[in-house]
Amino acid sequence: MADNVYKKVEIVGTSSSSIEDAIQTAVRTAAKSLKNLDWFEVVETRGHIENGSVAHYQVVLKLGFRIEQD
Amino acid sequence: MADNVYKKVEIVGTSSSSIEDAIQTAVRTAAKSLKNLDWFEVVETRGHIENGSVAHYQVVLKLGFRIEQD
Amino acid sequence: MADNVYKKVEIVGTSSSSIEDAIQTAVRTAAKSLKNLDWFEVVETRGHIENGSVAHYQVVLKLGFRIEQD
Amino acid sequence: MADNVYKKVEIVGTSSSSIEDAIQTAVRTAAKSLKNLDWFEVVETRGHIENGSVAHYQVVLKLGFRIEQD
Amino acid sequence: MADNVYKKVEIVGTSSSSIEDAIQTAVRTAAKSLKNLDWFEVVETRGHIENGSVAHYQVVLKLGFRIEQD
Amino acid sequence: MADNVYKKVEIVGTSSSSIEDAIQTAVRTAAKSLKNLDWFEVVETRGHIENGSVAHYQVVLKLGFRIEQD
Amino acid sequence: MADNVYKKVEIVGTSSSSIEDAIQTAVRTAAKSLKNLDWFEVVETRGHIENGSVAHYQVVLKLGFRIEQD
Amino acid sequence: MADNVYKKVEIVGTSSSSIEDAIQTAVRTAAKSLKNLDWFEVVETRGHIENGSVAHYQVVLKLGFRIEQD
Amino acid sequence: MADNVYKKVEIVGTSSSSIEDAIQTAVRTAAKSLKNLDWFEVVETRGHIENGSVAHYQVVLKLGFRIEQD
Amino acid sequence: MADNVYKKVEIVGTSSSSIEDAIQTAVRTAAKSLKNLDWFEVVETRGHIENGSVAHYQVVLKLGFRIEQD
Amino acid sequence: MADNVYKKVEIVGTSSSSIEDAIQTAVRTAAKSLKNLDWFEVVETRGHIENGSVAHYQVVLKLGFRIEQD
Amino acid sequence: MADNVYKKVEIVGTSSSSIEDAIQTAVRTAAKSLKNLDWFEVVETRGHIENGSVAHYQVVLKLGFRIEQD
Repeated sequence: MADNVYKKVEIVGTSSSSIEDAIQTAVRTAAKSLKNLDWFEVVETRGHIENGSVAHYQVVLKLGFRIEQD
Repeated sequence: MADNVYKKVEIVGTSSSSIEDAIQTAVRTAAKSLKNLDWFEVVETRGHIENGSVAHYQVVLKLGFRIEQD
Repeated sequence: MADNVYKKVEIVGTSSSSIEDAIQTAVRTAAKSLKNLDWFEVVETRGHIENGSVAHYQVVLKLGFRIEQD
Repeated sequence: MADNVYKKVEIVGTSSSSIEDAIQTAVRTAAKSLKNLDWFEVVETRGHIENGSVAHYQVVLKLGFRIEQD
Repeated sequence: MADNVYKKVEIVGTSSSSIEDAIQTAVRTAAKSLKNLDWFEVVETRGHIENGSVAHYQVVLKLGFRIEQD
Repeated sequence: MADNVYKKVEIVGTSSSSIEDAIQTAVRTAAKSLKNLDWFEVVETRGHIENGSVAHYQVVLKLGFRIEQD
Repeated sequence: MADNVYKKVEIVGTSSSSIEDAIQTAVRTAAKSLKNLDWFEVVETRGHIENGSVAHYQVVLKLGFRIEQD
Repeated sequence: MADNVYKKVEIVGTSSSSIEDAIQTAVRTAAKSLKNLDWFEVVETRGHIENGSVAHYQVVLKLGFRIEQD
Repeated sequence: MADNVYKKVEIVGTSSSSIEDAIQTAVRTAAKSLKNLDWFEVVETRGHIENGSVAHYQVVLKLGFRIEQD
Repeated sequence: MADNVYKKVEIVGTSSSSIEDAIQTAVRTAAKSLKNLDWFEVVETRGHIENGSVAHYQVVLKLGFRIEQD
Repeated sequence: MADNVYKKVEIVGTSSSSIEDAIQTAVRTAAKSLKNLDWFEVVETRGHIENGSVAHYQVVLKLGFRIEQD
Repeated sequence: MADNVYKKVEIVGTSSSSIEDAIQTAVRTAAKSLKNLDWFEVVETRGHIENGSVAHYQVVLKLGFRIEQD
């Protein structure tokens, strides 16, 4: 295996239903423009409250993907 | 919009079913005595184990709310 | 109550379905060889991505258990 | 001097003009309901952007004050 | 056991004699106005120096207590 | 409101006059190529010294913006 | 001196009397099963409160010991 | 000197030979698409193990470069 | 350019007017006894409150300077 | 692929020649008693100085390995 | 009160008896060469183990003192 | 052994060849003016890039040395 190089970008996914859904939303949206997505790391979990109840989850992620080299 | 001021308090929600449920329990309990709850930040996720299985989740949150000014 | 002593070990649970399931998998596997498991602390949440979607969650935990003394 | 006890609360001040003004706004608002305010610590500096320019600064502070004992 | 909710407050105890005494001073003062105090976490240990010797210890604590629900 | 996705980028603004001006410089420069800029977070404040005086401030920021989805 | 290798384990000592006693309890208990204990690092200091007073201190330690090699 | 603006990106370099080589691999790969690379910061050093020996080093870097302004 | 060596010292500047002024005060005072001051890093921003208003800012800085070698 | 479980242990490798050699020493020593070693993470790099020169490097590592399940 | 400037130095005190004694030892030794010592902050608590028992405590402190200006 | 006291200073070593060489440069330079240097801790590793390649490594170290007492 050659010496690969990866890039990490920071994405925030949101969801009104669950933390996992917010992660999936972020990953799937990023996958539309980034190839070779390989792993994610949760950096921060937070969210908005409306009327005394959780309105949606916001999960800050780092996404890692391999850079293609010629 | 005037220059708002917010306060943050630290609350621990618990739940035997899920992390999201522990967050909701904390938010709803706090909402009984605090108006204008606006956002939450997860500070720590932990829990108790009984008989070799997760008994309940404990999620430490910061809750932010706007202070009403006259 | 005597002055107890506890040990903490670091375990990584994985699951293709949810963060809670990854935690349960780690706890139940550790419980096969460790008695008196008492609490867990989530240290890090990450995971692998395949085909632009979350393939599985990896949750790094510290598990605390009481050391039996004679 | 007797052994004093202090409490710290977390307040977020906002200002459209400067970081110092956001701190002053937070301190002065808190002083309306808290006596003996003694020091502040900046925990986080952030803000909102509108139309490609800073709209206001948000400064998260801890405020310390002495608890009066009888 | 129902799903409890806890609150954490940040208190600074001081003592001219020892770190443990500063912690006890903080806990006992807080107990005058807070019921159900359950645990403490040391956040920071510092102090003042006078005439080239420690004058008193200042211990910043988080105190956790159960919120009573109706 | 649908489940939005945001991206965060890390930018360093510099200014010889003030911290706020360094932040504004970073935000305005980023706004030339990024639409929907929504918030900033100060990560680090530093600067260069020349002839025993501050020559310019360097403020490291994270900038968050909404990703447009079709 | 050859190139030694050490292992670190995480132990929690408790004591109703002092922080130092909690450390000693942890070290002495660990020494029953681990040879060559060489140093400790305090990771966290916390404790339980009963009846508005400190019931016992809990000190989380890392203990380092040399691994014997043949 | 005008008030420059810089951007930081996060890159992971890998190498089977050394940490410095992993850094160089990351920098040289990034330099193919980024002009004005100015500095790097090591964020994390890790790696893979195969057959009980280090297979390759993975060094997570932040790379800073000046943004050209018209 | 030879391989330079730098030293960093930790200085606290105070000012009743602004954060920038506290930084300048620290830098200018340090420059009286230290040659070759090159950069600063803000470590912590705090201050004192008197009569419910900010009395002065305290900015903890690291100052870096080149060590002259013969 | 089933849901694997991993354990992480903390090991300190030392070497008089290089950081990489200290890492290799730690990994190879651990591999004598642990099967399935999969990755390492550098936690801390330090060392001893003798006669004004580096005597040896001490690298604190976390080592991850898969737990075999029946 | 004029705008004071302070310096912080990092000192490690040791003691075979207690953490407080290690702090006092550090402060008193530093006071022999530094005037105007004003406060200390505990950065780290660790120690050496001999024969399965704590041999001495090592407390890393930052000490702050006012710089006299003409 | 009496209760020793140590001081820690923060030094940045640079090298165009390797991280280890940057550490050695820092240690050897510091040893010209400081006696009893005992240990180092790597605080940060960074460097400059020129023409798309690493120009030199900058390693920020804490150096500990025993203070001689009369």
